[in-house]
Amino acid sequence: MAQNSATLALTCELLSRQSITPEDDGCQDLMIDRLEAIGFTVQRLRFGEVDNFWAVRGDSGPILCFAGHTDVVPTGPAEQWKFPPFEPTLDDDGMLYARGAADMKGSLAAMVVACERFVAEHPNHSGRIAFLITSDEEGPAINGTVRVMQWLQEQNEKITWCIVGEPSSTSQVGDVIKNGRRGSLGATLTVKGIQGHVAYPHLAANPIHLAAPALAELSTELWDEGNEFFPATSFQISNINGGTGATNVIPGELTVVFNFRFSTELTDQQLQTRTEAILNKHQLDYHIDWNLSGQAFLTAEGDLVDATVKAIRDANGLETELSTAGGTSDGRFIAPTGSQVVELGPVNATIHKVNECVKAADLDTLTTMYQGVMTNLLAN
Amino acid sequence: MAQNSATLALTCELLSRQSITPEDDGCQDLMIDRLEAIGFTVQRLRFGEVDNFWAVRGDSGPILCFAGHTDVVPTGPAEQWKFPPFEPTLDDDGMLYARGAADMKGSLAAMVVACERFVAEHPNHSGRIAFLITSDEEGPAINGTVRVMQWLQEQNEKITWCIVGEPSSTSQVGDVIKNGRRGSLGATLTVKGIQGHVAYPHLAANPIHLAAPALAELSTELWDEGNEFFPATSFQISNINGGTGATNVIPGELTVVFNFRFSTELTDQQLQTRTEAILNKHQLDYHIDWNLSGQAFLTAEGDLVDATVKAIRDANGLETELSTAGGTSDGRFIAPTGSQVVELGPVNATIHKVNECVKAADLDTLTTMYQGVMTNLLAN
Repeated sequence: MAQNSATLALTCELLSRQSITPEDDGCQDLMIDRLEAIGFTVQRLRFGEVDNFWAVRGDSGPILCFAGHTDVVPTGPAEQWKFPPFEPTLDDDGMLYARGAADMKGSLAAMVVACERFVAEHPNHSGRIAFLITSDEEGPAINGTVRVMQWLQEQNEKITWCIVGEPSSTSQVGDVIKNGRRGSLGATLTVKGIQGHVAYPHLAANPIHLAAPALAELSTELWDEGNEFFPATSFQISNINGGTGATNVIPGELTVVFNFRFSTELTDQQLQTRTEAILNKHQLDYHIDWNLSGQAFLTAEGDLVDATVKAIRDANGLETELSTAGGTSDGRFIAPTGSQVVELGPVNATIHKVNECVKAADLDTLTTMYQGVMTNLLAN
Repeated sequence: MAQNSATLALTCELLSRQSITPEDDGCQDLMIDRLEAIGFTVQRLRFGEVDNFWAVRGDSGPILCFAGHTDVVPTGPAEQWKFPPFEPTLDDDGMLYARGAADMKGSLAAMVVACERFVAEHPNHSGRIAFLITSDEEGPAINGTVRVMQWLQEQNEKITWCIVGEPSSTSQVGDVIKNGRRGSLGATLTVKGIQGHVAYPHLAANPIHLAAPALAELSTELWDEGNEFFPATSFQISNINGGTGATNVIPGELTVVFNFRFSTELTDQQLQTRTEAILNKHQLDYHIDWNLSGQAFLTAEGDLVDATVKAIRDANGLETELSTAGGTSDGRFIAPTGSQVVELGPVNATIHKVNECVKAADLDTLTTMYQGVMTNLLAN
């Protein structure tokens, strides 16, 4: 591990804490001690049962914020792990195993160590460096980042640039960064009919028959064609249920659960309006509950993308790929305030699985990359 | 009850037996004793746990068979009954309450008493009179009428005319007779897709999306236009289920249960072929299990319909309506052998419900009608 072992050491300290969501189990204390030692002012923000903190260094100017989470998903069957999931273990190939190694305690350690080095070189950097850390990213995400963002708004603080430490990389650290995410909009649709006996269909109204043409149309609708950064918006029915179980009864109701993953070409409101127009066109009697998980967001270009691309190139020579693929992240809560947001973290191949692991050497590279972003944006 | 109280008395004896399907609880013994007393030869036919019998009077010539069942459906919540369901009770309005009063112990008693009277008047009637009685009509119908028909075929016996005692009437006894029934064809369709994450639809194949246009087409297909005796063939989906319960997973399979009620314009084979052609046209990967409950059958005209229409007119002056509406009956097992089949029984408003009842006076009228059919067909 040679010159960069500080990141590995802090990663292992964090990985030893059993911070299964929404527990923090002392991870944030470890980070806070280190950040206070280099001049950060820390605000602990506990909402409900969730620990969060905001830390900032510097008095004024643009804020470069490192965002992340100390909570991890459950281990799954512990006996299927090569090593105990909360006893970080380095194997002979230099892979570090533990729950959270890639998602995302390695990133947290790299951020802290990168700051320590940057501050040592640039004690009077321009602007401000901040940390927005939660222990509720893997859970309901109600008392985490979204609440800290509300609190920041009350303080009239605004994040200029945000690096989220989510594991963005595919095969080499830095090969992919996420400069946006698709939006996610869910719905539960209940189509009403009139229950009856299959032998007397004229006395009933079959909600499955009534809904089928509308579902066919929703399934084949071209919602948009995507754009340079996003694939086309996708509509998927995840669950459909109707019927009493009896083979001779026409059911009175059909329930359909569906989800949009949508690009920045559309808003959730437009999707709702267009969906309901199709349902209305088919003259359905229905009720629909919408659930917006996150708007689409995009940081197409600007200082942050430039600084990150350059930092990666300088660290390991990779020309990184900008991507908006994959699921949601806490970036969805930060981007709507106007912040530029980029996700940069280690290889994500093993996240949420048994035997989650990260290449130990990548943690040092990642530290160098984070330090590079600071240098590119805040060095005088 | 005056002159016709014999039918009411036998009905009450039958109703006191707790013959919940497939139990007979001695009902058939009661009938057999009465039939043997007037010269019937009886063959008891027990298949599995089901009691059946075949009784015949006369040596040769066409057979007029009375068909019916001694089993009844369960009572449902006994505390909701006005009177105990196996203690037949006549109320002040002349309604007789008990499970099976309308479906169909009243008919069985009327058949026996009608025979006693007809035989007393015509001891040397032409042709033969028969009874085909089962205790498995309300259950799976595997060891009942269908097995007796097989046995008759082995004896080289064939029923010429058959009166089934199912409660065919709507508001007055004899106002409707059934001269046919729609066929019933069921199916369980499994449409196969590829399971995946809703965020990565290009790696999955959603069976709900794939099936929706085919289901829409099946729902709106005009299978036939019916005919003089049958409404148009009806397709109904009774159950549809797909999905893991999770909102972010595209399911790998969709299950659809549907049922045809079909006219004599079509066969089950034609329906299967046409359904599969639609599924194939939509290029679905599917498996389908078909289950034929009964072919459609029709006794459009002939001696039996004429004799029955006349007997009803003579008994209470009604011009009866010929109908093929409603569910299936054991007539489906008898008609395919070439028999003429008509269903004639009491008002069916309360069958299978709590407080099942029949107008006691209707049992006497029904007795007169059954006797009239025998007179019209077999009196010398």
